[in-house]
Amino acid sequence: MLVLTPGMGIGPEVTAQALAIHPLKQPVLLLGDRTVIGRELTAVGLEWTAVDTLAASPHGVTVMQPESEEPVEVAAIRTAAEACLAGHASAMVTGPIHKQRLVAAGFGYRGHTDFLGAICSAEPVMAFVGGELRVALVTTHVPLAQVPALITAARVHHVAQVAAAALVRDLGLAHPRLAICGLNPHAGEGGLLGTEEQQQISPAIDALQTAGVDARGPVSAETAFLQMRAGEVDLVVAMYHDQGLAPLKAVDFGRSVNWTLGLPLIRTSVDHGTADALVGTGEAKADSMVAAISLAERILHHRAQSPVSATSPVSPVPSSRVLQS
Amino acid sequence: MLVLTPGMGIGPEVTAQALAIHPLKQPVLLLGDRTVIGRELTAVGLEWTAVDTLAASPHGVTVMQPESEEPVEVAAIRTAAEACLAGHASAMVTGPIHKQRLVAAGFGYRGHTDFLGAICSAEPVMAFVGGELRVALVTTHVPLAQVPALITAARVHHVAQVAAAALVRDLGLAHPRLAICGLNPHAGEGGLLGTEEQQQISPAIDALQTAGVDARGPVSAETAFLQMRAGEVDLVVAMYHDQGLAPLKAVDFGRSVNWTLGLPLIRTSVDHGTADALVGTGEAKADSMVAAISLAERILHHRAQSPVSATSPVSPVPSSRVLQS
Repeated sequence: MLVLTPGMGIGPEVTAQALAIHPLKQPVLLLGDRTVIGRELTAVGLEWTAVDTLAASPHGVTVMQPESEEPVEVAAIRTAAEACLAGHASAMVTGPIHKQRLVAAGFGYRGHTDFLGAICSAEPVMAFVGGELRVALVTTHVPLAQVPALITAARVHHVAQVAAAALVRDLGLAHPRLAICGLNPHAGEGGLLGTEEQQQISPAIDALQTAGVDARGPVSAETAFLQMRAGEVDLVVAMYHDQGLAPLKAVDFGRSVNWTLGLPLIRTSVDHGTADALVGTGEAKADSMVAAISLAERILHHRAQSPVSATSPVSPVPSSRVLQS
Repeated sequence: MLVLTPGMGIGPEVTAQALAIHPLKQPVLLLGDRTVIGRELTAVGLEWTAVDTLAASPHGVTVMQPESEEPVEVAAIRTAAEACLAGHASAMVTGPIHKQRLVAAGFGYRGHTDFLGAICSAEPVMAFVGGELRVALVTTHVPLAQVPALITAARVHHVAQVAAAALVRDLGLAHPRLAICGLNPHAGEGGLLGTEEQQQISPAIDALQTAGVDARGPVSAETAFLQMRAGEVDLVVAMYHDQGLAPLKAVDFGRSVNWTLGLPLIRTSVDHGTADALVGTGEAKADSMVAAISLAERILHHRAQSPVSATSPVSPVPSSRVLQS
């Protein structure tokens, strides 16, 4: 069974559209406001059943509204994660939430990724895949001024190691090649423009290479994404939000999927926000939700085919050519 | 007369190739190492003449090696700027320099842009145009940790105002629309992820709008570049190097031109580095140098056609639609 949390704003309508476009072979449970979700499912002609508990063997499309003191969208995410951890569900797919509104209602996390990390007592890694580019982020939703202090060798190592393992286990890449960005312009330009590369990022890369991970860098962010587009690397490790996501969305908007790595469950998500201005206009596109559901299915397929260890080492592959940059 | 400084690394060979592909209607003076430049010109079959002074009426392709205590590539940039300021040349086009090597030789600037600002006693603005995206940068070659303190309302205002005026005067856009990025992820998300937007960037946008500049934001960098690709804005003002240049190069590499605004001279440049590993291999591409020369010609054409004031106000144009982000 797949669990879906449609979320807020355009979330419920793009979820219903996605299920109409992309029918699932396995049962799907939608968690959230039953009235809202049910209305959208009915609007696209999908049959559904309301349920009150996580049934052991559901059929088709079911909708459950979790009972909780929390906002229903928060309770939905918690219930979905618990269903995955308990083995009732194989993966969770999430729609957008409006963080400002949830924070005002008492939500204490910066988003899904942090919330799931707390539920699972794990250190999650935010990644985006699905289009031309693949990105994993060392830091995510923090003020830019706080970023430099958060770039530690341990965190860079963790993110790259988790990302490399996920590419092997979940996407079937035999020898993933990772470009590790610098923090500063031109990756610090040999120390002229900052020292975090020399003090934190390069030591992490050395340790990764020793552990058999094909990690290259620190490389200028400009160059890293060119290498990815040229097929020379398989994933870019970006040090912070805009360094990774501004290029990703400029190239891949609507195709990429927000994928949380490093958790004991599978979670994929749309790459867009709640887009409240589009609700009910018919303009919201379901492409990203379809991509998120498809990625979850693809990961399940790979895990079923080759159940290797998530921590198996990956071998380095030599770099091919030098970019003109 | 156009002056060109081929620079270092692949600079001389891509300059010669560019002049072979894209013959100029006006005389061109190449400044730098005469032996190196002459060899590359001869290699592509171009006739050239060596000169010792800035001749008042040169013909065809001439090469001059400036006499100076400085590295020849630095003296070339200085001489080119002085030729523009004195009215001997109409514009300058520059190739790549290797900053680390020049700094080791005593060069005291972070690059062409800062050096030209000092020569002209002006506050330059680094911009990139030529492909799908146009970007102007509020800060450039500084360590990321120093960026937040440099984001002042005055600097944001200066950059946006200079950029809007250049789009009117030099590219012929009647009513340029500017997207002003936030500094923090999601443009600070209403203060949850930083306050520079509220304290510095929004006040600058208010002042710009009052002055008749169509400045919109602060907007998330992810959204700003989507708006640019969708044709909803004409230029993105990015707060720092990687926020602007990682998306720009991911989308436009090889097509974009580094264009210095805010100076009393016209300067365009390639968007790539010295790529030392490619020197002499025949793999270096002249596309960016051709684009840089073409942009200088286009600016001269626009200025000749409509010699309006660089500070003429520009009228706001209403936004059209809300992006799903």
